[in-house]
Amino acid sequence: MAATVDCLVELGWSGTTTTVVARRAGVSRGAQLHHYPTREELVLAAVAHLGAARFAEARERAAALPDGPGRTAAVLDMLAALHTGPLFRAMLELWVAARTDDALRAAVVPLEAEVGRETHRLTVELLGADESRPGVRAAVQQTLDLVRGLGVSGLLSDATGGREERRRRHLLADWARHLDTRLEA
Amino acid sequence: MAATVDCLVELGWSGTTTTVVARRAGVSRGAQLHHYPTREELVLAAVAHLGAARFAEARERAAALPDGPGRTAAVLDMLAALHTGPLFRAMLELWVAARTDDALRAAVVPLEAEVGRETHRLTVELLGADESRPGVRAAVQQTLDLVRGLGVSGLLSDATGGREERRRRHLLADWARHLDTRLEA
Repeated sequence: MAATVDCLVELGWSGTTTTVVARRAGVSRGAQLHHYPTREELVLAAVAHLGAARFAEARERAAALPDGPGRTAAVLDMLAALHTGPLFRAMLELWVAARTDDALRAAVVPLEAEVGRETHRLTVELLGADESRPGVRAAVQQTLDLVRGLGVSGLLSDATGGREERRRRHLLADWARHLDTRLEA
Repeated sequence: MAATVDCLVELGWSGTTTTVVARRAGVSRGAQLHHYPTREELVLAAVAHLGAARFAEARERAAALPDGPGRTAAVLDMLAALHTGPLFRAMLELWVAARTDDALRAAVVPLEAEVGRETHRLTVELLGADESRPGVRAAVQQTLDLVRGLGVSGLLSDATGGREERRRRHLLADWARHLDTRLEA
């Protein structure tokens, strides 16, 4: 599973063949094909598996988040980390490949929806957001689309220096202040 | 140029070979290779060309935007259209492919930066935003990262029905109200 996601991150969807993954993972092709007959099944299983592990880890780390002032900013930092790390990049490879591949798309759409719901739930919980109040649900969704956008913006520019990371931190610190007002309004 | 972007949108980066594009455009391989010796050069030229055309078109359409109340919402609709249409999808194919291809990346990074600057300029102009005032530049950048995130969110789900489009409209209408407050503050 880890070797598959590593391949996606390093080589992209087109470079992630079952042969390359089997070699990297040190497993026989027979054993691999027994569990995952196709590249699509292998990659989907790997992304779903590592996604679940990453959420579990995020929930554990969430226990260490500060209470009171600074909590919203800390939650946004955590969300930004989830959207700039290797797993986000692996998922983006999969979403983009699925756009032009009907069979892959049929499998990826429910996975994307599940990841979206789980991220939303985690965010609401960590922010202590009361979605029954007007505007709160929209504020949470905008936050998630913003960090997704920032993740895509960092795709190429993160590697070219710390400038994009500074821009992201600045925008999120500013967003945290406004979000606090919107959650309390 | 148009045939190249059509291929990217329909077939993705991996399906966009010079042979496929030449056949679709009805040009000889010789003529094509004379102008664009590699797939990278062809695709970059096409995306840059259509990007410039799309900006020119957006500036023209901007003349028809309403003044006064409703203008911000209309500008956001226009930005959302720029980030959900075929050109955005073609660009995303290119950004994602460039992530794992060093030669392509070297060419794509400046193009992405230019597109980013141009989009920022257009947005500031259309919103009449005064970036010398505190918080205004951050609000404009958040707007652009938000629409970029919404564009990625719509990548797979836009085709599965109007639900994602309704979500996008709702979030942007809500954001337009907050953005107005922040631009005037």
